[in-house]
This record gives sequence, structure tokens and C-alpha cells, in this order.
Amino acid sequence: MNIDFQTDPSKYRHWRVRYDGHTAHLIMDVDPSAGLFEGYELKLNSYDLGVDIELYDAMMRLRFEHPEVKVVILESANDKVFCAGANIRMLAGASHVHKVNFCKFTNETRNAIEESGAKSGQSYIAVVSGACAGGGYELALATDHIILTDDSTSSVALPEVPLLAVLPGTGGLTRVTDKRKVRRDRADIFCSIEEGVKGQKAAEWRLVDEAVPNSKIDAVVAERIEEFAARSDRPSDAGGIGFGPLNRRVSDDSIDYDTVSVAINRAARVATITIKGPDGPPVDDVVSMVEAGDAFWPLRLARELDDAILHLRLNETGIVAMVFRSEGDAGQVLAYDAFLESNENHWLAREILLYWARVLKRIDQTSRTLVTLVEPGSCFAGTLAEIVFAADRAFMAEGEFEDRDGEAALTLNTMNFGRYPTVNAISRLESRFYGEPDSVDVAREHIDKSLDAVTAEKLGLVTAAYDDIDWQEEVRIFLEERASFSPDALTGMEANLRCVGPETMESKIFGRLTAWQNWIFQRPNAVGEEGALRRYGSGVKAAYNTERV
Amino acid sequence: MNIDFQTDPSKYRHWRVRYDGHTAHLIMDVDPSAGLFEGYELKLNSYDLGVDIELYDAMMRLRFEHPEVKVVILESANDKVFCAGANIRMLAGASHVHKVNFCKFTNETRNAIEESGAKSGQSYIAVVSGACAGGGYELALATDHIILTDDSTSSVALPEVPLLAVLPGTGGLTRVTDKRKVRRDRADIFCSIEEGVKGQKAAEWRLVDEAVPNSKIDAVVAERIEEFAARSDRPSDAGGIGFGPLNRRVSDDSIDYDTVSVAINRAARVATITIKGPDGPPVDDVVSMVEAGDAFWPLRLARELDDAILHLRLNETGIVAMVFRSEGDAGQVLAYDAFLESNENHWLAREILLYWARVLKRIDQTSRTLVTLVEPGSCFAGTLAEIVFAADRAFMAEGEFEDRDGEAALTLNTMNFGRYPTVNAISRLESRFYGEPDSVDVAREHIDKSLDAVTAEKLGLVTAAYDDIDWQEEVRIFLEERASFSPDALTGMEANLRCVGPETMESKIFGRLTAWQNWIFQRPNAVGEEGALRRYGSGVKAAYNTERV
Repeated sequence: MNIDFQTDPSKYRHWRVRYDGHTAHLIMDVDPSAGLFEGYELKLNSYDLGVDIELYDAMMRLRFEHPEVKVVILESANDKVFCAGANIRMLAGASHVHKVNFCKFTNETRNAIEESGAKSGQSYIAVVSGACAGGGYELALATDHIILTDDSTSSVALPEVPLLAVLPGTGGLTRVTDKRKVRRDRADIFCSIEEGVKGQKAAEWRLVDEAVPNSKIDAVVAERIEEFAARSDRPSDAGGIGFGPLNRRVSDDSIDYDTVSVAINRAARVATITIKGPDGPPVDDVVSMVEAGDAFWPLRLARELDDAILHLRLNETGIVAMVFRSEGDAGQVLAYDAFLESNENHWLAREILLYWARVLKRIDQTSRTLVTLVEPGSCFAGTLAEIVFAADRAFMAEGEFEDRDGEAALTLNTMNFGRYPTVNAISRLESRFYGEPDSVDVAREHIDKSLDAVTAEKLGLVTAAYDDIDWQEEVRIFLEERASFSPDALTGMEANLRCVGPETMESKIFGRLTAWQNWIFQRPNAVGEEGALRRYGSGVKAAYNTERV
Repeated sequence: MNIDFQTDPSKYRHWRVRYDGHTAHLIMDVDPSAGLFEGYELKLNSYDLGVDIELYDAMMRLRFEHPEVKVVILESANDKVFCAGANIRMLAGASHVHKVNFCKFTNETRNAIEESGAKSGQSYIAVVSGACAGGGYELALATDHIILTDDSTSSVALPEVPLLAVLPGTGGLTRVTDKRKVRRDRADIFCSIEEGVKGQKAAEWRLVDEAVPNSKIDAVVAERIEEFAARSDRPSDAGGIGFGPLNRRVSDDSIDYDTVSVAINRAARVATITIKGPDGPPVDDVVSMVEAGDAFWPLRLARELDDAILHLRLNETGIVAMVFRSEGDAGQVLAYDAFLESNENHWLAREILLYWARVLKRIDQTSRTLVTLVEPGSCFAGTLAEIVFAADRAFMAEGEFEDRDGEAALTLNTMNFGRYPTVNAISRLESRFYGEPDSVDVAREHIDKSLDAVTAEKLGLVTAAYDDIDWQEEVRIFLEERASFSPDALTGMEANLRCVGPETMESKIFGRLTAWQNWIFQRPNAVGEEGALRRYGSGVKAAYNTERV
């Protein structure tokens, strides 16, 4: 079964959104019978990837379709349970590859929620009533403010270690220490208590921002909404754009969108993703951009690329490498960049730029070898050039090629110098030139110049330049070599080599925390026949190997 | 079989040290027949934990026994092979827990080598001739300067991914990116080539500092020795101290040293480590300190504690928690601290302080729950108080206890405010109070005051204070709870909670890199019957599951 990441509110089974002026209420109301797979019920507002796909869609629409929304209240339709976290039976039954990719996507959505208040003027407030456990609390941790009902039944908890023998691994441990800055021994206690922490103690330990009695909760929420709304620079009177369905044609070995096409070669274990440049120059002004809406080229491309990457991650796990190509007019790509940059304070331009930053991070965090081919007729310029710098290897065609017009070119612009930070919070060029920061300055001097292969290679911008005689052979040999390696070793190698320099909360979540969780997802104590995930709810206690590694 | 971390040069089978004025030559000459376990030969200067134990011993003696040594030349006795890395048959046969702990100890020794030049005035230069592969190159990476012979047979290589389906996981990937700052795509190429990189290309890619033709190598090495020696502040005319054998009495469930005793309760899965304070005041001056040598209390304690921790890690893997206690006069502990601090520029005092920093990091990185009990009669003050802040939980006795004199006290001094950084390069108190930096300042105002349990708890310095009625019960309940959890989940949880805030190369090695390697050490592609580690050298290619996770 192919997992589809496209949905829209008319299809939601698990979430409702209620709009109220500058506030939206994002209400979790999981349909137990609507799990993505067979074999489990999504009881107690527990979630699986299907629930998360809807959450991602809702988050995207809140940002693009509702510029007027300054505050999102994250709440539950169920008084007794805010959210019970990831569904345990789903986890127990899921393959390793599904668990890992489910967690990664969950993390990416949470990171986007976390970014929203800081960068997009749309803050999230979690209003927690009832049990908020595991992934439920991890979701709350991604918001800007957590209000906990101060009563005998509302609590926050990370019961993974005592209950399930796994980690609060989708941001939980990292956000408790690095975001909430809970004192270490208290964090240790908190993560050891199945029943969690309630009321004022939760506030005192910084697990929530405030614990409020039921009688005052409406007033406090209203007050916080006004406070956060007052800090927002989103326009009160702008109309949003609509996110229509993607124009997507799927065959057995291809997916074609308007601006992206994916060719899947399962024998070679390679997916080739071709990006099409814009058909013409950008619109004249922001009014026209809003009118263009989801047809506006940079936005359409971001959505299609996003969908393609997610599709390949979850549905084509045999693919070892993603090869990025492009076709089009680099000058027009640069013109779109210039348009977005000169309108960066317009809400929609800002959203598009932030979305591109997230899509590029999604590419960085994809456990496939990333290869970019800069060929004659390609348009890797500015924003699209980031895909060259995201790649593990970037090859550039040198000189003229038979049957192709012109020579390959690469063009930098200001977008390549900080607009799209990696999870390490440095630019891809700063990552690339971590050992030679002067090379970043030299690259900057080449902004807006059409660089040929010899120059790009000399500047260190691509891995290698090959002429028409060697090109096909060199690319083929590389891809065959890659396919001969252990996919696991590649995943570990790429996760380390892509992450040079400083670490941030995001990079710690994708690196340190995720790697430990993946390790645990292989350990019999969690996933074995007698492990905690399998035995959960059976009435039989898990049997652990007592060896400490 | 118990693995013993104590050795001395008379017992070395794998290393030789030659002294030449301010230079020492540390020569790797592995005896193939002297592996730590049966079933493999240590061919081609490959290593196992036994080789690493000798290297650790040699490194320690170079620092303490040889203050006159300013430069250590790391070289091989074998012209054709510098070092082939960790022995593959050993890895293929070793248990998961052994592999993980072997790698951790290896990393710790390499970190100490790396620290040596920067902090101790004793720089390491790797002179590489022949093949330098895998762990061999990782060892070279830990030095301050790598000189590669520029010929057709000398190369540096990280062949783990293509050859063995594992990572260059003992620092390799992290040091290639973050220390050598090799450009990302070049690092990717380098880690994909079994045969490695030679000569000037290795220098150009920053994999080595210089590639020198055979005819010039002696001259260049001599020149570098003088350059590094000139930067050293180690005394040319001081005599070192001798590292005598530890006074260690081992029984089935205890180990007693002069200043440390370990009681092992395998039924409860707890090891209790009791530290004894000094018998009297410190010596009067540095001359007497040197005379006291390895009997000088802080040094003796550090060595004994180091040995105890290593012993428990490798030989008592069923132990879930280490409980730290102390007995003695806190005033004398503080007097020793004051003595060391006032003589911090004396070579031996400096070495002792640096050694304590390393021992404390070793405790931090130990995958056992760390508990510190501050009881009546204990002497957790200054340096020893760091063990309170290293703990996952610190419990303090409140008020008078039956059958014990006096009340429990905790005393801070300047040692607690930056002298002993964690691998994150912040102090344990800064880690503890990451969310409330003011609390560090408040703690600083309490330097040199004997703090009772109520005060220590109020200042946030301990997890909880219990009186005589509750004490035993509370501690017992906690340890039983801990023993009921999955050891793997605890390892992952503790590895994350102990590592708040900024990351450094060291923390990335112990976190990100190690966690990915441990994951891979569980994957069939590496360790399964058809995996690369098992099939290496068999003539049959490994069979991989081709799914990318």
C-alpha cells in the first residue's frame, strides 16, 4: 500500500479546525477506527502516521490559507485525554523502516510548529486537559506555550522508558532538557514516572508554562491569545491562498507533477527527480502573487518536491540514491528569487521562503544518497543551487554535450548565504566550507555570475566536473558503487557527514536522540517477542535482558 | 574472564616506548598471537581492547612519568602497515556489549591524546608510513599533526563502509568533518574508497597535514618535533613520578583499593563505590607532592576510581546502577583542592587536575545509572562534589542519623565552576542549571560553606533530602525501580539527559556517532550471518538487505 501524504480538510478523520478571528482551534479528535493500517485502534487520541499526515496538512493550511490566524490553540476534543501519544500496537506491529520514517516525519512537523511562532508570527498554545502522555506531550513541547489544567486528572508524562522500553524519541528528551531546560535529575524522575506530573509541580519543574484551575482556564487562555496575537506581525486583513490538490499522475515507475517528475529505476535502485524551472518571469507584484496562489511557481514546486520526497522515503525504501536534475531558465529562477527577496516582508513571500527552508531540510534529513547533476539546460541557480549543496555528491557537466544546447552553469545569489539554514543553523555553503571559511567569501564574490564547470569545481562548489565522454560512465559507476554498499552503513555515514559543526536542538533530535531511539528500536527488550512493545496490554510483564550496554 | 585495565611497560606485548630527550617514540608493534580473546590473530598491527589498554597505560605514563617529554611521535614498527585498525575477526566474534564498551574506551583514550597537546604541553605527531586504515587512521586523527610518507604504498583510509558495513565509529567521521574539516563531498568519497588516499591529495584534502617524500621524512619530523617542543611549557629538567601497581584486593563481590572500595550486589544489580577522603592534610609544597608521587591522595584516588569504573563497565554488565558514597574529612578534601589550585601551573598538579577532569568525564559517559548518596560522615566537597553533580540522582541525608556522627554536608569550591568541564564543554553545575543560570551564581555565593541537606536541596544541588526514617526505604525503592526498567532504554535516556546544551566534537563522538554505530552494530547487514563483519575474508561477499531505513 502506498502511503499518500496529500489530504485536505474534507477528508480529515482525526482533526478539526475552528476559526475565530485571529485564532484557530486545532482540535485533536482521533477516529479510533481510521488507522492507516489494519490491526490496531487509535484509542485515547493516540496517533499513527495517518494522524500526523493530517496534522501536517492542517499546519500548512493554517500558514498559507489563513494569514489572519496569529494564534493556534492546540486542544483535544476529549476531556479525559489530550493525547496518549503514538499508538503502541501500531509501533509493535510496524516494520523498523516504518517506525524510523514515521518518527522522522513527526519530528519534521513538530519542528515546523515550533518555527511557526518564531518566524511566521503564528504561535501555538497547547491547552492541556486530561492525560497528555508520550508523543502527546512531545507535541505540546513543540508549541510556544503549554497551559495545563490544574486538577486531579490532568497531567503531562513521558512514560516511554518505564512502560514501553523505548525513548521519548520524537523530540521529547531533547526538548525537556534543551528547550524546557528542566533540571537534569528532575527530567530523569519525570521520564521514569508512568503517571506523569500534575498541576503546580509541572509548572515549577518547567514542564509546562502554567497550571491553571478549571475555573480560570478560559480567561487565562483568552489572555494568552491576546498576548501572543499582539506580538504577531501577520496581517489581520489579508486573504489567504487556497491549497488545491496537486496535479499528480502516478504510474508504476514514475510520478509526474507540474514542476517535478520522478523516474524510479528499481533495478538500479535510483530515483531521478527532475525539477522544471518557471515557464516565464515572475508576477509583477504581491497582489498578483496572491492571485496566483498555489500556482505560483516557487510554491507549486516546493509542494510537489515535498510530496515527492515524502513519497520516496516511505514508499520506495529499496531506492539507495535520489538523483536531482533540473531543466529550465536559470535567469527566471533568479528572477523569482529576486521577487521573493524584495518582498520578504509580505506574509506570503515569507511563508514561501520558510517553506523552502523546510523542504531543503527535509532533503538533508532524507536517508538516501543525494546526488545532484548539473547538466546543460539545467537551472541550478539561487534557491535551486541549494540542492547542489545539499547533495552528498554534485557532478557538473563540462563543456558542450552532444544533442544538448549550451553548457551547464551554476549561479549563486544571496539565497545561498544564510536564507536557508540547515538543522545546524548554518548555511549549506558554510557547512561545505567549514574548513575554509574564506571560500564562502570567495563564492560570495561570484554572486549572479553564470559559473561553468571548471570555475565551479575550482571554487569547490561541485564534487567533480566531467566532459561528455566521461559523464554517463562516471555517474553510472558512482551509483552502482553506492548500490553495492550496506544501506545501513550509508545511513549512518551520511547522517554524520552531513552534520558538521555546531549542533542545535533540531540537529540533536535528528542525530543524537533519533540514533539512540533507532538503536533501541532494534533491541529485543523493546521489540522482541518478550519485549515491552509486544507485551504491552497483554497482562504479561516484559522480560528484559538485564545487561547494560 | 575479567578484563584487567592495569598493566605496565614490562608487560607490554604491543607497544614500545623509546625516549630521546624531550621526545618519545610510541611505537606500535602488535603481537599477532597476544589477542585478549581466543579466535583471532592481531595481524597487520590491528588492535583489540588489549592493545588499547596498553596504549592507555603508555599515554598515562608519558604524562606523569615523563614531564620532560614534549613531543610524542606515534609510529609503527612495521614499514608496510602503520595500523590496520580494529581487528575484524575480533569485532565479528565480540558481543554487542563488548563492542560498544571497547569503542567507548578507545574513544576516551583518543580524546586524552587529543587533549594532551592542547592542555598538557605534550603534543602527539603521527608519522605514517604504509597503510593507515580504519581505527589506525582514527588514532592518527586524534594527534596534533599527521605526516604521511608520500610514496606509492602509504595511504590513509576509512574503509569501514565499503568493506565492513559499519562506520568509522571511534571518532573517524566526526574528526574528518569537525577537526580536519574535510569538505563534505570529499569526506564522502574518502569514506567510500577501500584503498584510501595517498600523498599530496591526502594533504590537499586536509586528511593529513603534510605528505613528505621518504628522503625528507626524517628531516621534516625533526623539524616538527622542534616546532611543537618549542610551544610546550613542560619542564625540561623535572623528574617524573612512578606509577606503581595499584594496591587492589579483589574478591568475588568486592574490590578494595587504598582509597576506593567497590561492593557488588549482583542480586540487586547495584555496585556501591565508596571513596575515602585523605588521611591528613596535603603536603606542604610541590617538592613533597612529587616525592609522594602516586601515593599523593588525589592522584591515587583518581587512578583507583578510574580502574574501578572501567572494571565495572566491562566486567559487571548486569549492574544497573553505580552508587557513589564517600567517607572522610571534607576539610581535608578542600585543603587538597586548594593545594592543587594554588599550584596549578606546576606540571604535576596540572596533570592531576586534567586527569580528574578525564575521570569525571569517564563517569559521565558510563552507561549505568549514577547515584550519589551524601550521608553523615561523607566528604563530598569541591572536586568530590562533582560526583554529586555527575549523578542522575543525588540523595542527601537530612538531620541526624542513628549510629552516625554529625550531619551530612556538601561543600562547593571554585573547582565546581569550570575546572572540570563535561564533554559539552560546560561545567556540571552549568549543565544542571541550564534553565536557570542565576542558580549557578547563587551557588557560587555559597562557596566554602558547609551546606546541610535542607540548604543543598533549596539551592537545587541535590535531587532530594530524606531523613533517617525515610532514607533507606527511598534509596531502595529507587534502585529497585531502576532495576525494573529496560537497560537499553535507560542507556538511551541517560545519554540524552546528561547532554544538555552545546555539543562539541567529543560530545558528538559519544552521542551522534556512537549511537549510529551502535545501531549498525545491531543490524544484520553488519553483524548477521551473511553480514559484512562475519563474511570478511571468507571470499564470499556479504549479502545485504537493500532497504534504506
